[in-house]
Amino acid sequence: MTIQSDDATRPSAAYGVHSEVGRLRKVLVCRPGLAHRRLTPTTSDDLLFDDVLWVDRAIEHHAGFVADLRSRDVDVVELHDVLAATLRVTGARDWLLDRKIVPGIVGTGMIDATREFLEGLAPEQLAEYLIGGLATQDVPDLPAAYRSLAEYALDAREYLMAPVPNTLFTRDTTCWLYGGVTLNPLYWPARHDETLLMKAVYEFHPDFVGSTVWWGDPETDHQRATLEGGDVMPVGNGTVLVGMSERTSRQAITQVAAALFAGGAAQQVVVAGMPKLRSAMHLDTVMTFADVDTVTVYPRIVEAVHAFVLRPGRDGEVAVTDEGSTPFLDVVGRETGLGELRVIETGGDVYESERQQWDSGNNAVAVEPGVVYTYDRNTTTNDLLRKAGVEVIEINGAELGRGRGGGHCMTCPIIREPAF
Amino acid sequence: MTIQSDDATRPSAAYGVHSEVGRLRKVLVCRPGLAHRRLTPTTSDDLLFDDVLWVDRAIEHHAGFVADLRSRDVDVVELHDVLAATLRVTGARDWLLDRKIVPGIVGTGMIDATREFLEGLAPEQLAEYLIGGLATQDVPDLPAAYRSLAEYALDAREYLMAPVPNTLFTRDTTCWLYGGVTLNPLYWPARHDETLLMKAVYEFHPDFVGSTVWWGDPETDHQRATLEGGDVMPVGNGTVLVGMSERTSRQAITQVAAALFAGGAAQQVVVAGMPKLRSAMHLDTVMTFADVDTVTVYPRIVEAVHAFVLRPGRDGEVAVTDEGSTPFLDVVGRETGLGELRVIETGGDVYESERQQWDSGNNAVAVEPGVVYTYDRNTTTNDLLRKAGVEVIEINGAELGRGRGGGHCMTCPIIREPAF
Amino acid sequence: MTIQSDDATRPSAAYGVHSEVGRLRKVLVCRPGLAHRRLTPTTSDDLLFDDVLWVDRAIEHHAGFVADLRSRDVDVVELHDVLAATLRVTGARDWLLDRKIVPGIVGTGMIDATREFLEGLAPEQLAEYLIGGLATQDVPDLPAAYRSLAEYALDAREYLMAPVPNTLFTRDTTCWLYGGVTLNPLYWPARHDETLLMKAVYEFHPDFVGSTVWWGDPETDHQRATLEGGDVMPVGNGTVLVGMSERTSRQAITQVAAALFAGGAAQQVVVAGMPKLRSAMHLDTVMTFADVDTVTVYPRIVEAVHAFVLRPGRDGEVAVTDEGSTPFLDVVGRETGLGELRVIETGGDVYESERQQWDSGNNAVAVEPGVVYTYDRNTTTNDLLRKAGVEVIEINGAELGRGRGGGHCMTCPIIREPAF
Amino acid sequence: MTIQSDDATRPSAAYGVHSEVGRLRKVLVCRPGLAHRRLTPTTSDDLLFDDVLWVDRAIEHHAGFVADLRSRDVDVVELHDVLAATLRVTGARDWLLDRKIVPGIVGTGMIDATREFLEGLAPEQLAEYLIGGLATQDVPDLPAAYRSLAEYALDAREYLMAPVPNTLFTRDTTCWLYGGVTLNPLYWPARHDETLLMKAVYEFHPDFVGSTVWWGDPETDHQRATLEGGDVMPVGNGTVLVGMSERTSRQAITQVAAALFAGGAAQQVVVAGMPKLRSAMHLDTVMTFADVDTVTVYPRIVEAVHAFVLRPGRDGEVAVTDEGSTPFLDVVGRETGLGELRVIETGGDVYESERQQWDSGNNAVAVEPGVVYTYDRNTTTNDLLRKAGVEVIEINGAELGRGRGGGHCMTCPIIREPAF
Repeated sequence: MTIQSDDATRPSAAYGVHSEVGRLRKVLVCRPGLAHRRLTPTTSDDLLFDDVLWVDRAIEHHAGFVADLRSRDVDVVELHDVLAATLRVTGARDWLLDRKIVPGIVGTGMIDATREFLEGLAPEQLAEYLIGGLATQDVPDLPAAYRSLAEYALDAREYLMAPVPNTLFTRDTTCWLYGGVTLNPLYWPARHDETLLMKAVYEFHPDFVGSTVWWGDPETDHQRATLEGGDVMPVGNGTVLVGMSERTSRQAITQVAAALFAGGAAQQVVVAGMPKLRSAMHLDTVMTFADVDTVTVYPRIVEAVHAFVLRPGRDGEVAVTDEGSTPFLDVVGRETGLGELRVIETGGDVYESERQQWDSGNNAVAVEPGVVYTYDRNTTTNDLLRKAGVEVIEINGAELGRGRGGGHCMTCPIIREPAF
Repeated sequence: MTIQSDDATRPSAAYGVHSEVGRLRKVLVCRPGLAHRRLTPTTSDDLLFDDVLWVDRAIEHHAGFVADLRSRDVDVVELHDVLAATLRVTGARDWLLDRKIVPGIVGTGMIDATREFLEGLAPEQLAEYLIGGLATQDVPDLPAAYRSLAEYALDAREYLMAPVPNTLFTRDTTCWLYGGVTLNPLYWPARHDETLLMKAVYEFHPDFVGSTVWWGDPETDHQRATLEGGDVMPVGNGTVLVGMSERTSRQAITQVAAALFAGGAAQQVVVAGMPKLRSAMHLDTVMTFADVDTVTVYPRIVEAVHAFVLRPGRDGEVAVTDEGSTPFLDVVGRETGLGELRVIETGGDVYESERQQWDSGNNAVAVEPGVVYTYDRNTTTNDLLRKAGVEVIEINGAELGRGRGGGHCMTCPIIREPAF
Repeated sequence: MTIQSDDATRPSAAYGVHSEVGRLRKVLVCRPGLAHRRLTPTTSDDLLFDDVLWVDRAIEHHAGFVADLRSRDVDVVELHDVLAATLRVTGARDWLLDRKIVPGIVGTGMIDATREFLEGLAPEQLAEYLIGGLATQDVPDLPAAYRSLAEYALDAREYLMAPVPNTLFTRDTTCWLYGGVTLNPLYWPARHDETLLMKAVYEFHPDFVGSTVWWGDPETDHQRATLEGGDVMPVGNGTVLVGMSERTSRQAITQVAAALFAGGAAQQVVVAGMPKLRSAMHLDTVMTFADVDTVTVYPRIVEAVHAFVLRPGRDGEVAVTDEGSTPFLDVVGRETGLGELRVIETGGDVYESERQQWDSGNNAVAVEPGVVYTYDRNTTTNDLLRKAGVEVIEINGAELGRGRGGGHCMTCPIIREPAF
Repeated sequence: MTIQSDDATRPSAAYGVHSEVGRLRKVLVCRPGLAHRRLTPTTSDDLLFDDVLWVDRAIEHHAGFVADLRSRDVDVVELHDVLAATLRVTGARDWLLDRKIVPGIVGTGMIDATREFLEGLAPEQLAEYLIGGLATQDVPDLPAAYRSLAEYALDAREYLMAPVPNTLFTRDTTCWLYGGVTLNPLYWPARHDETLLMKAVYEFHPDFVGSTVWWGDPETDHQRATLEGGDVMPVGNGTVLVGMSERTSRQAITQVAAALFAGGAAQQVVVAGMPKLRSAMHLDTVMTFADVDTVTVYPRIVEAVHAFVLRPGRDGEVAVTDEGSTPFLDVVGRETGLGELRVIETGGDVYESERQQWDSGNNAVAVEPGVVYTYDRNTTTNDLLRKAGVEVIEINGAELGRGRGGGHCMTCPIIREPAF
């Protein structure tokens, strides 16, 4: 991981995302697994899931999605695999365990036994625990009184490493924006360690080493500067859209903008000031691109968005323009040069549109212009997309959708071509 | 509907449920429909659903369950059909509309237009609205200012008749206990009208008229006496098990016991004093019978149950015995004469068992001794049942399970033979 | 209690409230007591209190308020006293116990012992329990196993009669509107029995018998027609203001309007369609009158109110006018003939005004035009009222204010003169 | 601030707390102020207050408490004063502003104007804002578009420095344990900056510089190691009691124990494993010492406490003993050498005791053996203390008590003599 790498022989030299809908070449996903087997009705709220999943079935549905991506010549890499490969690199296992197996989390008195247990695992097994969490009951040789103290403190499910089930939504953790990546400080503490795992990948995995990092470091306290990829869209033409939401703060947005301007990666950042509603978690929950100039939107929220535009100012500063009452989509059309966008609204009556938005109906991800993935359950919205000439490929959302994220959330594009 | 009917030519003379696992002959179910299309993320909590459903798919899965029941010679009647048939009987439509289209709900000024609209519907359409709810937007000719007042009071979804999506769980609303039925006062106001619909059926539908009603009348204020069928099990040998839970109160239990004793239908009621936990909503969420002497239980809750036994006392009173520390299942074995029960616990580790209970893993319904329906997603519990020799038929629970009820909840047996 | 009484010798013939600020002659209050000693952190939410009170101190503060009212020649009657006097009338005790000591609440098996205990009490003691609640532990001779069943069902605090601590807010339960009274169906089930107690008063107490009742009967199920006095203001000139809020529904408002029009008591009802915010519980939490043409308002809410006017229509119907974007206060000025109202806003900056509204800063009650009571803690709002020439008498709100009601909520005027 | 200081001429050389009830010589408190004027019904939950306070009155009541302490020869230092004095020391202002006025909180584009504004303030004013919070509206010259972005992100109350109203409870932030102090990582993020302010005091204020710090640094990420002083009691005889609660974790407890053992300050730490109940926030909410061998306890919780004892182990490790079913108070008596403790329970019936505990009835703080401060509202518990020979001095709790902390919580002893 470096700020500028010129070694063109590294795979990462080719990495970059230049649009929301251009040809997708390489993408990072994360299959469901142990972390979701740990979700219970008692803990799912804390882990940001609305319900428990039937994990075996969720794995099948996810595999179906991946297979379809591969059938369309997309190079799909999976986080458990990537992490296991990372752990095979000299130094990577120590780097991660030094940061995870510490007194502030595992507790003094249990570190040695825990580390010893983890040292003995194969890379695949360790990757599974890093994502799926390590419970006291998983480690056979903990000192008895310490185990008792730990299990009394919480219960038999006290974690020595917490599960990070939201890795399923690889979109949020890191963002490729044109030729570089951000390592995002996520809003909820329950998700912070996702970024640490990704940093290990970018530090050690031969395919990722050498990437240009625009901003973000999980080992730094970014305070109230939080950023989640579901709010970030590098639409092209030097423009990035960013939702300013509960989870993505003005403090982060202005810092990222400054970094992108300094790196010459972007010329303008259009900020979507989101209304304060739980259903408007991320920008991509209410708007995504389905084709070069075509968006699927949930109008009730998108019409309430307040736009700001950030541009390079003097002395490396960021200049802010308050767009006042100009509609957000008009600002997007103007800044991208696309002009008036074609808008496909969430389908159905007042009940149905709210239901479809909730079920990630607007959370489409494109594999190329005019070809998108969405959940099968959004039948009315999918029909409208098809009527508008968009090819819709369906993902089974019976289980995957319970985490409140769709195809856009479950994919982190690594190589995507420009769209215009 | 009468207290005692001797007309042996009526179909209802044959009705009666004499066990939890004896041969099931006739059962009432209710398919998903309009009421579930009205569920949104905003309203689902009030309507007691944890999430919205993909309704078309839920209808398919429900139809699959019904088809399997029919393939096993069970006479399955469906509530929309039953209600439509009821509405064809002279007087039934007026009886229901007189009780539903009233100033306290529809509001003065809108009654005439609403009633006129409903009078013009076919029985099937009216049944759909009675269960699915009637929104102001459904009625074309409401006076404009009144409509405006009503829609301001809530929003475009203001109901003139509220949807009752929990009719899906026919188990709760009425209970056949040996030769008679109870018309249950349900705990949540959002469910009260379910019982009114069922009263119309028992008052007018030729197959149901003349049934013996042990207790309950939706037109009487039962105050804190609430009863839900998920807590009630006529296991046989003159014994009824009743969960005393958040939803089924001591006030109802002692009244029902008195009525059963007076009618000679039962000799003892075993009360399962449930711990105050949200996951222990009804007795049938933590324990059901899979075979004559075999129960599937969620041990964490069932072990905490405190048993009482009610028996006929002097002068029509009910005598109560506090069973103190005697385990509930021991009391059940003793009172039924079954002796020690065979217990199959919810499967899996500490995470999995909590997950399976949540997903209605213990909510089996038998079609005959040793043959039960459960959701497909409870794979570990289903495996344990099969290993114990129980035949398990799976219901697709991807959508249906989101209402937190399984096969037992979705069935109201009307004719079931004794099991021992 | 009759619909029309012409017996001018009854005290109630003189009862009537003809304004919000005219000379107050007689008022009903209710001191804190046993019901508030039953409030605990666990139960206060269910009983609609935000916090527990220091009851002895609350009683002192309430007594200070009453003493000041009496010093200004107001005839203050107190609910415990009124209820005790009612219980001395032949038939009243039986009337109440027949309705309270019933199987649906006390439970079969405990009725005899409970009723016997209550029969033996002095009227003052019984009044204290009727308001303060009766716990199983209060009754010495309950059958042991039934007591055990009851206490297991909830805990040692299981009630045989529930406490009704919100009687403190006498404003809500009954409303004198010009020459008659309403017996209000309150929104929360926890408050329903307040109205039953008041019906006993109007049925039996010699001072109240014979009052004209416009609308409402606690023994009738009014369904979604709910009305709370905090939303109702008979401002004079045949006009009544009614807040349409979470607690006061359109179904009730149109019924009350019809009754007032039929009785010739009012010519117009101005409906304040309240925004759906928890802080806007009742109209009197955001606006009260301080003088004939002077109101204290919380602008953030009042500016968002949507006005409707109800007037007599054809054939006893109620005609509705949607006032659209006309400001609520303009409609009030127009309908009352007062013209432009003088408006005193909640004081202080953005923090302070929200704090003052919360602390009942806008909940003034007038003893005569220009002389009002408010809580001492609303110092900035009180200062503004004084600067506008209003005399402000302070009530100690350290304890009383924790139930989220002020002087207006704690008073039910019975005789008040016109103001203009 | 150093780990070991031998400079006996510094005031801090005399600092140390050697018991819970020995003669109190010096104590740190914090008066209510601007931070509490920022509390509104909307924000109080986030800031951990149950209700808004009448701040002027709270200041009076706090001043009364302080005056009484001073009348008993206690040297009372107040945090606003201490912080202002700290800010007068060269380097202190820069040290704090460098840490508070950063891009991650204030946001790029607003730092210069904000810092300039704060640089221009007198030390007293700056201290008020450091504790009371700095809103965008407080800073006159913010760049307009940035201000607009910030106020859109939240609202007019967007903070550039967040208020820390829980400084009122000085007990939690730092703990003197025998001859050294801990700088506690507090559980809630809303309280983290309290410890940063205290670090500035220990770094710069001449009276505090040179203190021995056992553990804790607000500039280090302690992860799940959190500690709050309400859980910590240096009772004497080399013993420290620590509640393991929601807010004080095993990870912190074992680290602090290791530091105390290494410094020779303690020989045993008795861990009170608290049941997981919201009412058992800290150990001192359910148990405090009133005299050498006398405790006031809330039995319902204290009887459920599970005790562990930590002692020095091999090689600087901490040895843990699980006390199993031995009652916590017996373990305390044994480890301190006090033998059987005299126990005064929270007074009153089942309602009253729960109410008194909630109102900080068990949260006494001693000024010398047998002389304690408690809130006036805990009349029944105070009576029991007096009957047991304890002198009780009352604090007016009408306002102060709304933050759910009593005299023990509001005091951080700096010099207290041994008690035995």
